[in-house]
Amino acid sequence: MNIVQPLVPPLSPDLIAKFRKIVGDKYAVTDAADIAPYVTEERDLFHGHTPVVLRPGTVAEVALILALANETATAVVPQGGNTGLVGGQIPQAGELVLSLTRLDRIREVDATSNTMTCEAGVVLAKAQEAAAAVDRLFPLSLAAEGSCTIGGNLSTNAGGTAVLAYGNARDLVLGLEVVLADGRVWNGLSKLKKDNTGYDLKNLFVGAEGTLGVITAAVLKLYPRPRAVETAFVGLASPADALALFNLAGERAGGTVTSFELMSRMSVEFALRHGAGCRDPLGAPLAWYVLIELSSQAAGLRAPLEDLLGAAAERGFLSDATIAASLDQRKAFWHLRDMLSDVQRFEGGSIKHDVSVPVAAVPDFIAQASAAVESLIPGCRPAAFGHLGDGNVHFNISQPVGADAAAYLARWDEMGAVVNRIVTNLDGSISAEHGIGQLKRDLLPAVKDKVALDLMRTLKRTLDPNNILNPGKVL
Amino acid sequence: MNIVQPLVPPLSPDLIAKFRKIVGDKYAVTDAADIAPYVTEERDLFHGHTPVVLRPGTVAEVALILALANETATAVVPQGGNTGLVGGQIPQAGELVLSLTRLDRIREVDATSNTMTCEAGVVLAKAQEAAAAVDRLFPLSLAAEGSCTIGGNLSTNAGGTAVLAYGNARDLVLGLEVVLADGRVWNGLSKLKKDNTGYDLKNLFVGAEGTLGVITAAVLKLYPRPRAVETAFVGLASPADALALFNLAGERAGGTVTSFELMSRMSVEFALRHGAGCRDPLGAPLAWYVLIELSSQAAGLRAPLEDLLGAAAERGFLSDATIAASLDQRKAFWHLRDMLSDVQRFEGGSIKHDVSVPVAAVPDFIAQASAAVESLIPGCRPAAFGHLGDGNVHFNISQPVGADAAAYLARWDEMGAVVNRIVTNLDGSISAEHGIGQLKRDLLPAVKDKVALDLMRTLKRTLDPNNILNPGKVL
Repeated sequence: MNIVQPLVPPLSPDLIAKFRKIVGDKYAVTDAADIAPYVTEERDLFHGHTPVVLRPGTVAEVALILALANETATAVVPQGGNTGLVGGQIPQAGELVLSLTRLDRIREVDATSNTMTCEAGVVLAKAQEAAAAVDRLFPLSLAAEGSCTIGGNLSTNAGGTAVLAYGNARDLVLGLEVVLADGRVWNGLSKLKKDNTGYDLKNLFVGAEGTLGVITAAVLKLYPRPRAVETAFVGLASPADALALFNLAGERAGGTVTSFELMSRMSVEFALRHGAGCRDPLGAPLAWYVLIELSSQAAGLRAPLEDLLGAAAERGFLSDATIAASLDQRKAFWHLRDMLSDVQRFEGGSIKHDVSVPVAAVPDFIAQASAAVESLIPGCRPAAFGHLGDGNVHFNISQPVGADAAAYLARWDEMGAVVNRIVTNLDGSISAEHGIGQLKRDLLPAVKDKVALDLMRTLKRTLDPNNILNPGKVL
Repeated sequence: MNIVQPLVPPLSPDLIAKFRKIVGDKYAVTDAADIAPYVTEERDLFHGHTPVVLRPGTVAEVALILALANETATAVVPQGGNTGLVGGQIPQAGELVLSLTRLDRIREVDATSNTMTCEAGVVLAKAQEAAAAVDRLFPLSLAAEGSCTIGGNLSTNAGGTAVLAYGNARDLVLGLEVVLADGRVWNGLSKLKKDNTGYDLKNLFVGAEGTLGVITAAVLKLYPRPRAVETAFVGLASPADALALFNLAGERAGGTVTSFELMSRMSVEFALRHGAGCRDPLGAPLAWYVLIELSSQAAGLRAPLEDLLGAAAERGFLSDATIAASLDQRKAFWHLRDMLSDVQRFEGGSIKHDVSVPVAAVPDFIAQASAAVESLIPGCRPAAFGHLGDGNVHFNISQPVGADAAAYLARWDEMGAVVNRIVTNLDGSISAEHGIGQLKRDLLPAVKDKVALDLMRTLKRTLDPNNILNPGKVL
């Protein structure tokens, strides 16, 4: 990745000592080997360096750290579980790392109000478990849930597989506690569903990737746990047919449609070829597939799902379909879906794009982008899949068979420009789920409304005038 | 209402002429009789004056007006359908009125993406109709829907009767077009459900009551229209039992629970006494009532509703219940509910509070607040009702029988202080739905987190440095 590094002046030993004193020596990581996991991203796409990783154990310590950083113009990179995919959590040039993982208390679970108050360092899977323990659902769910944290989820406005029914991370939060750049603490830990007493502050910090403030705790929404689930694996001729099925599902089964995952034959084929335990749920190959799942509190979803698939078949936009007859079969459908991304590495280099377009434009996007990349690099193999109902396509393209992987991957930026141009022409987004971080920062000016970009810069200057919070990320 | 008026210097005839020229004489209202409807609120609680009401027909004209206002430090009050209940839309001291009602185009309805792009002046009922015309639901629904506008709905983050299932106005918007204080236009009319390319700007303007920018258009979310609806009228012993029923409904019927309205016997009694066509759906009087409604795309909601009510009766937190056997009966249930507010005037003076608390605290709030007001004014009659699932209580208190209405209403602020103290102690909000406007501005410093208030002031100074946008409202 060709990222311009900001210039961060080295910190004096005196200043470092002051920061260490706030958290105590035990929680100020300075040994190079101990620092390594904090400055390296799991795919090794981003690596940086830092003189010290600070691991505060209280909100008050976070406040003291930021107050001192602000006074001394010291750059700080907030970090949760270090699972981000765009380098937002990795220092670039000697910034302090502020790891929130010790703030890991679940402060309250209120099953009656359907809320849960978690500190930033609570691992997502732990939050899910705490909700389940009181017979509730915290619906945020994504591949990294065993190590990513609530603070990171909110700072990146994480997506995942439950967005269709429950929204992005932004939609799952009622209140926040945030330490501002100058060390003041905003206590906005509201459990209210309705509160029209002034400006909405929480959405400023959700999705800001730690550049406007440091989220230290959040009030999260809980939901009833679904009692009934029905899952079907459907084969279709085209993304347009999948879109027709999606709209029919909305009309027939509305709020019970909790997943609607689109998969190209190529992406499924890679999984069948390389994924342990992956089997084709349908008899003969089809060009496109959809995994559709209905969930509800009440039983009796089988009939509506059968009716839906029957109506779709009658109207001609469904070629074949099978409904999971057992929990094992349901798991097998999801296993196939979950393997799609991972297995692409067995087919050589893969150039990946996490994009979104208006739902109606998904078929157009896939057609145009596929044609464009095949024309740019003949023989390349689009293996697209994604969350159709969110307009979110993981448009990943594997190298031509037998090509040189390194030479192929060297054309990432070139192919990205082609794909992003189509995304922009369709009023889409070049980052649906993963954010901007380091990876897409320099792409932003070309695709973002100029007034919006200027507003973003104005907000950054206002809320972080000394530019200490994750400088060089997003903007 | 005892509101401190800001000092707005009178505008020179030259300057007024410049503003008039932007919209043309036909759309610059200067005749006192024509101005009157724009400067008087429907209950006559708020009235102001203005030298001119500007009625731009294009976004470009709005931009020119704000640019000129900004250069000349001229205060401007944006206005939609003039139905706000806290005086936010009424000039206080000679500000210009910027009426958005001529921006009333529905620019696009996209049934496939489930979005609709409306200009600010589109009347809410028209937006609902446009959605219905393509077999979709735009769920925002409130008493003023025949005259309030989308711009006003978004600027006040309107609530209403569908919040439980679909959220507040804030939750129904995907993108915005906003004219900033300096006349620049931010085009944020995104139809995307997922877009993590930078800060969330739209939520800054939603609910800001026109003090940070002027919303000129919005992309709104559409939903499938429910095919099946089942409605029950339930009698219970207490708000605690209603809360138990609400949670059981969530567990048994989850996403299909679209309304859950709590009503005290006193509020129902007033409707039975004074409301044309209001009849008691149950045989004998009970202390509390709930109107519960399930909706879904699929048929077959009767059985789950019966199961739910049966289970609640078994557990002892339901005294009596009847399920609407016909559309007429369903309408009768809702007619009774809809009359609750209006009929209170027949019982003399009514002091009203639109508050919210965490859902679990609703029974506590009602008990504490009822005891407190009865102790303050012996014989006063709490006639509370509200949206239990949102934690939102309309805590209205009728005067003691035979008391002097004026003398009773003179104690509004005193009673408000008592009620708001209880709300604040329970971590609630003194304005759940209606906003701050003029009415509650001076209450805000006492109830709002100091850092939050300071952040709000900072945002106001940053986005509107010349304080031209609805000055003296909210802050």
